[in-house]
Amino acid sequence: MIHTDKIASANEAAEAALRADYDALGVQLDRRGVDIEGVKEKVAAYGIAVPSWGVGTGGTRFARFPGEGEPTSVFEKLDDCGVIHRLTGATPRVSLHIPWDDADPADLIAKAEETGLGFDAMNSNTFQDHAGDPHSYEYGSLSHTKAPVRRQAVEHNLRCIEIGSKIGSKALTIWVGDGSNFPGQSHFTRQFERYLDSARAIYAGLPEDWRLFTEHKVFEPAFYSTVVQDWGTNYLIATELGERAQCLVDLGHHAPNVNIEMIVARLIQFGKLGGFHFNDSKYGDDDLDTAAIDPYRLFLVFNELVDAAGTPDFDPAHMLDQSHNVTDPIESLMNSAMEVQRAYAQALIVERAALEEYQEENDPMMASETLKRAFRTDVTPILQMARLEKGCAIDPLSVYRASGYRARIAETRPKSAGGGGGIV
Amino acid sequence: MIHTDKIASANEAAEAALRADYDALGVQLDRRGVDIEGVKEKVAAYGIAVPSWGVGTGGTRFARFPGEGEPTSVFEKLDDCGVIHRLTGATPRVSLHIPWDDADPADLIAKAEETGLGFDAMNSNTFQDHAGDPHSYEYGSLSHTKAPVRRQAVEHNLRCIEIGSKIGSKALTIWVGDGSNFPGQSHFTRQFERYLDSARAIYAGLPEDWRLFTEHKVFEPAFYSTVVQDWGTNYLIATELGERAQCLVDLGHHAPNVNIEMIVARLIQFGKLGGFHFNDSKYGDDDLDTAAIDPYRLFLVFNELVDAAGTPDFDPAHMLDQSHNVTDPIESLMNSAMEVQRAYAQALIVERAALEEYQEENDPMMASETLKRAFRTDVTPILQMARLEKGCAIDPLSVYRASGYRARIAETRPKSAGGGGGIV
Amino acid sequence: MIHTDKIASANEAAEAALRADYDALGVQLDRRGVDIEGVKEKVAAYGIAVPSWGVGTGGTRFARFPGEGEPTSVFEKLDDCGVIHRLTGATPRVSLHIPWDDADPADLIAKAEETGLGFDAMNSNTFQDHAGDPHSYEYGSLSHTKAPVRRQAVEHNLRCIEIGSKIGSKALTIWVGDGSNFPGQSHFTRQFERYLDSARAIYAGLPEDWRLFTEHKVFEPAFYSTVVQDWGTNYLIATELGERAQCLVDLGHHAPNVNIEMIVARLIQFGKLGGFHFNDSKYGDDDLDTAAIDPYRLFLVFNELVDAAGTPDFDPAHMLDQSHNVTDPIESLMNSAMEVQRAYAQALIVERAALEEYQEENDPMMASETLKRAFRTDVTPILQMARLEKGCAIDPLSVYRASGYRARIAETRPKSAGGGGGIV
Amino acid sequence: MIHTDKIASANEAAEAALRADYDALGVQLDRRGVDIEGVKEKVAAYGIAVPSWGVGTGGTRFARFPGEGEPTSVFEKLDDCGVIHRLTGATPRVSLHIPWDDADPADLIAKAEETGLGFDAMNSNTFQDHAGDPHSYEYGSLSHTKAPVRRQAVEHNLRCIEIGSKIGSKALTIWVGDGSNFPGQSHFTRQFERYLDSARAIYAGLPEDWRLFTEHKVFEPAFYSTVVQDWGTNYLIATELGERAQCLVDLGHHAPNVNIEMIVARLIQFGKLGGFHFNDSKYGDDDLDTAAIDPYRLFLVFNELVDAAGTPDFDPAHMLDQSHNVTDPIESLMNSAMEVQRAYAQALIVERAALEEYQEENDPMMASETLKRAFRTDVTPILQMARLEKGCAIDPLSVYRASGYRARIAETRPKSAGGGGGIV
Repeated sequence: MIHTDKIASANEAAEAALRADYDALGVQLDRRGVDIEGVKEKVAAYGIAVPSWGVGTGGTRFARFPGEGEPTSVFEKLDDCGVIHRLTGATPRVSLHIPWDDADPADLIAKAEETGLGFDAMNSNTFQDHAGDPHSYEYGSLSHTKAPVRRQAVEHNLRCIEIGSKIGSKALTIWVGDGSNFPGQSHFTRQFERYLDSARAIYAGLPEDWRLFTEHKVFEPAFYSTVVQDWGTNYLIATELGERAQCLVDLGHHAPNVNIEMIVARLIQFGKLGGFHFNDSKYGDDDLDTAAIDPYRLFLVFNELVDAAGTPDFDPAHMLDQSHNVTDPIESLMNSAMEVQRAYAQALIVERAALEEYQEENDPMMASETLKRAFRTDVTPILQMARLEKGCAIDPLSVYRASGYRARIAETRPKSAGGGGGIV
Repeated sequence: MIHTDKIASANEAAEAALRADYDALGVQLDRRGVDIEGVKEKVAAYGIAVPSWGVGTGGTRFARFPGEGEPTSVFEKLDDCGVIHRLTGATPRVSLHIPWDDADPADLIAKAEETGLGFDAMNSNTFQDHAGDPHSYEYGSLSHTKAPVRRQAVEHNLRCIEIGSKIGSKALTIWVGDGSNFPGQSHFTRQFERYLDSARAIYAGLPEDWRLFTEHKVFEPAFYSTVVQDWGTNYLIATELGERAQCLVDLGHHAPNVNIEMIVARLIQFGKLGGFHFNDSKYGDDDLDTAAIDPYRLFLVFNELVDAAGTPDFDPAHMLDQSHNVTDPIESLMNSAMEVQRAYAQALIVERAALEEYQEENDPMMASETLKRAFRTDVTPILQMARLEKGCAIDPLSVYRASGYRARIAETRPKSAGGGGGIV
Repeated sequence: MIHTDKIASANEAAEAALRADYDALGVQLDRRGVDIEGVKEKVAAYGIAVPSWGVGTGGTRFARFPGEGEPTSVFEKLDDCGVIHRLTGATPRVSLHIPWDDADPADLIAKAEETGLGFDAMNSNTFQDHAGDPHSYEYGSLSHTKAPVRRQAVEHNLRCIEIGSKIGSKALTIWVGDGSNFPGQSHFTRQFERYLDSARAIYAGLPEDWRLFTEHKVFEPAFYSTVVQDWGTNYLIATELGERAQCLVDLGHHAPNVNIEMIVARLIQFGKLGGFHFNDSKYGDDDLDTAAIDPYRLFLVFNELVDAAGTPDFDPAHMLDQSHNVTDPIESLMNSAMEVQRAYAQALIVERAALEEYQEENDPMMASETLKRAFRTDVTPILQMARLEKGCAIDPLSVYRASGYRARIAETRPKSAGGGGGIV
Repeated sequence: MIHTDKIASANEAAEAALRADYDALGVQLDRRGVDIEGVKEKVAAYGIAVPSWGVGTGGTRFARFPGEGEPTSVFEKLDDCGVIHRLTGATPRVSLHIPWDDADPADLIAKAEETGLGFDAMNSNTFQDHAGDPHSYEYGSLSHTKAPVRRQAVEHNLRCIEIGSKIGSKALTIWVGDGSNFPGQSHFTRQFERYLDSARAIYAGLPEDWRLFTEHKVFEPAFYSTVVQDWGTNYLIATELGERAQCLVDLGHHAPNVNIEMIVARLIQFGKLGGFHFNDSKYGDDDLDTAAIDPYRLFLVFNELVDAAGTPDFDPAHMLDQSHNVTDPIESLMNSAMEVQRAYAQALIVERAALEEYQEENDPMMASETLKRAFRTDVTPILQMARLEKGCAIDPLSVYRASGYRARIAETRPKSAGGGGGIV
């Protein structure tokens, strides 16, 4: 963990400049009729989940270059996640992935308490074969042509719910690798019918207060077709299953050029937006750090979310899902959590009454400028002040680097094997 | 028109070689358990609609290079469409576009009888301003923020139904240019709600035996967002409106890399495939000649259609929708109609029982080869024989060129102005 | 024109707040070791060319919705361009397009002096047929299979040079629509050889102190292939022609997902970056307002330009090239010029010594953050102060709207015909 | 190996039908002025290299599902490659990958003789860390910021040349994973300069009769930028290095929608086409079986190659490069080799004199139809006859399946571990 003293002394050195910047920004926002304190409070209250697997080094099918001190168990992962939340105050929950994080629920709960964390959605895995399982997922899982394979995949998902129920999770996220690599390999309709049947069996095992999130993806690991290829199919799934089934949006899972913020709006409108896997992408499911490539797109997504705030039953889950191939995962997750907060803060200061008027009067220039004005605003002081007031770090990256945490854990955690292709 | 004699004499010269090729192919197909006669009969019975506007030269926003003898009225368009059907026997219906083709229904019916044609779906136009209309569609039509504009657009669609009702059409196709060019310009949800309200008003005016087709498009003429951007939104429209509302698939209206045949399968599965606008594309809505760029993709679409044949209430409309910028439109439409027939014939000879077995047993290699085997088959003799037996041309292109039709109409139809398209 | 009084009084009302914001920003930048005054001076000295055709309403192949008061001559276009420069102080030059802007050079010079403008690169047009020309460009211009057509296209370009020479232009920009719509239509190699031959003939007529810019584009108006499809081919052209031939980069002319800033870097490295056509795009050559869709991308391009500043013979031409379909063109051009200035200012405040160190030490997190820190900075006060000190408007949009200029010109300029674009 | 008897008896059963089909096709082609025997001879003489790594099961970053009897050494790989060539007669050479295939050259030569194979281009690997190497390639290899890493990468390439020289290879293929995941991570120009320096050092070590192939790729494993991102940069490399440096084209390494056959034409025109990595793709570097997704595109590439045949010094290398994730790799490689032959045969029967005339006269319809006519021709009998006459299998897939080869090797080769992410 990071010593509170270190945070405090670093903050002390930075506080004067922060207060000056915060005040100057407050004056600016006041001119626009925006109350900086209100924005800060909402940012302070905001939290996003981190994925347990995100604290390990990612990789590609070509190679994985493991970093120092990679976590070797879910408990070490929780330690790392605890550091992220301790410094940023922005990541109060962790999302587990089964079987990677399978462990005694009591131990998980104890560790979560120790690290100041809670548990978010459970993630099942039927895109890989599990040691001990009789059936392979090479040709699919929930949509496999053979009933025993589908059954095994359903059972695994029910097991994820079981574990989750014991540790306070309230949602199951399903993403499958099912699809095909050749035209003709799969009969699209029968394949999707099988998927729906399996999904219904899982939904039937869902506790009353849980939600089921399904996630679409246009390609990879299947390269000709995927069963849940886009939000259209994802919407059909959620509709077929029932009220507690909703759609998850991952920012890298779309065809090129697709307008993602519009998909978000459609799912909100029809009551089916379950939540997000935040990351960024330039080409495909690149799983790059959130806002690394196109920060305006992230802002536009949050613009939809802030606009919809207050809609009854509107409660999307927010989670990061990134592959950290060339950075320290703790740094990337801290930074990405702050980028999400930034987009949220920017969306909060959009002058919505004016925007609505410009939209109504078909004034695209001023409507665009209204969004741009909010986006251009450097809200860093708001984020920093929210952290300072929570006892977190004004500058989490520099405190983290100064803390020596990575070097310390590298001493006690064995260096992992690198070599070939990595895992998400 | 084309003289029957000319067709007959050209056919006579080609018939011996055709019969030899047909017989050789029959032997080959027989080895696979496929009856060539049955395939030929289905091909002969197949018909696709041509768009009235397709017989004029197309253009881009940069320029239009009008050809000789362009039709100057819907009646001349029907003359040209008649030639296409006379030679190919494949295009028994014409799809009209209002207001471009507005005319006295009695005259339309008379001309259709004269040219041996019927009328397919009516197409409304609210992407352009019409002379005499009080309101502009610059900022949208069915989804415009202002009620009077939406009302005008709804009225126009009802007028299309009215005309169509008098000439035997049984469907209305709606494609709108509504969308936005700037983030923030439109409120996605309110815009779509307005669209749905307008569409409901049109649907309410739909005769009992009509269908309403809506068409999605990812971009152009709006370049940041379109209201009906993909099949997901299109499906929502069809579901919101009712049973007689279905989705139209245009092959060039998707994001890059999207698996179109899978969308076709999904829409079939959920009872919402209304039909097609066939063409081909490499980059966007290129409106190139059908199968000019990717003939295997067209085959894969027809593979879904043949697979679904026999599904209750499954009756998709088939129409060409192309922009002929550098060819004689009559030639392009003839050739494209034949390319569609080709894909249909290839899909008919897929050995489906074997394919299903390979799919069930997860044998992608043989499943793929089963489709490829059908696709590789040169079914030209089947198409030619179907035409010969109907009294149409074995080789429509060469008969058309030899006929001098284009030169003849160029004498009586004034040369149209070319010049700029839209604006760079 | 806009009265100086109106600018002055509007500025007066806004000046106090601006000075407060500017000072606060100055303090912030000073902490980073950045001198705000130096940045402001560079921004003040920066100028970008506007395209004469940009002040007219654009359109698509589907429709054009002409605005009020569209300019009907090159002189009225210069009036509008003068307003843009008067208010922003950022657009000192206009780029003419022949034959649209063909006029007596003396009159052009007189009007330029009156409006306080100069002339930038000349643009030729061989993608449309010109009244009176014997040959059509339907099947190409510089690369046409027939020598007389190529000759006509070469002559047109030489004529553009001739006009430009008389009005002080120093560059010719060539963009052609040549390409093909069908595989097989054109022989790629022979077509490109013909293009090169024609381009050599133009280059031979280039005055010693002129540059020749060629522009690549991946598709449209040709939809299967274009002759100058990407920067690779563009580079070959510039290399084949000679030292004064360079490549123009338009931000919307690339395949999806392409890394444009990297192309910029490559062309700089090999001495072949001629300049830019700035705009923005989400799907294709959308010609949207600069930075409307992806402001970070624009910043990354300017990051390359600022990084390369000082390279011998490095002098890229900057021009806007947009199609204003739903906005007042004057507003869009003003706003886009300011967005370009913004990206330039942000690139100027990148802490480059630190960045270089992070790059050298493979610290992607801090390298990325170094760019982001500059990009997040709201440099609006710098741009505003530069304008204020030049006697231009702190807020050009509001001064323009308050001025009544559009309404005034609408009274004297006839409403242009709208109607169809090209053809669907 | 496969017993000659098994091939002969299978061929005997299929020969009569083949001769009938071959004769019928011969008659058809004769009508077009095409001599079937000449085509067959060229097809028979054609050979394509297989990649040694292609006979192992591929995988994605998500999972790898190893098949039965996977080769565990380069010698077992050569056994498998021998089977492919024995049955198809189309794959006379194998391309090795170092360090995966590092072995005593004498043993390699002996095994090659035993299996009837030769060696094609050598492939280096600096996208993974090698056991024992002091430096990691996490942040690049040939373009790494640190000289010792670059030196290590250069040495590795020189070692590949050394091995290759002893076994009769005549080319080195370089593909690197170098690039960046964040804007700002790498300085584009300095990175490329380092790449060029390293490449020059390798080129300096190239034997006189060798060629150096460099391969571009738009993304993956780097997801913001790659050093050799497209053919433009690849061309610059080949030009900077010298005459024996040429560009390799992999069909899956381009941005979406890119016209690949045109790139092939450009590289031919400028003397820089080194060769191909054949495969197919729908989304990215999917490494699917050749012609599985878009057979017409493959034909269009071969149309360029056949068109250019006879150009002095034109000798592109042909190699398959695929990842077989769901099929028996031997089956996929056999089938893909035959698909390449098919495209070659189709390109050979294009009526080129007619095509040239249509191109010259701007008759896109007939030009397109000329290509389509060749493509539609089912040339299977030509391929089969070429195999029959060489003593190979008329139907390699069925003979292979009947042979029991896979089951036999599965008995002696240990089952490989599956689990996580796979390798190319």
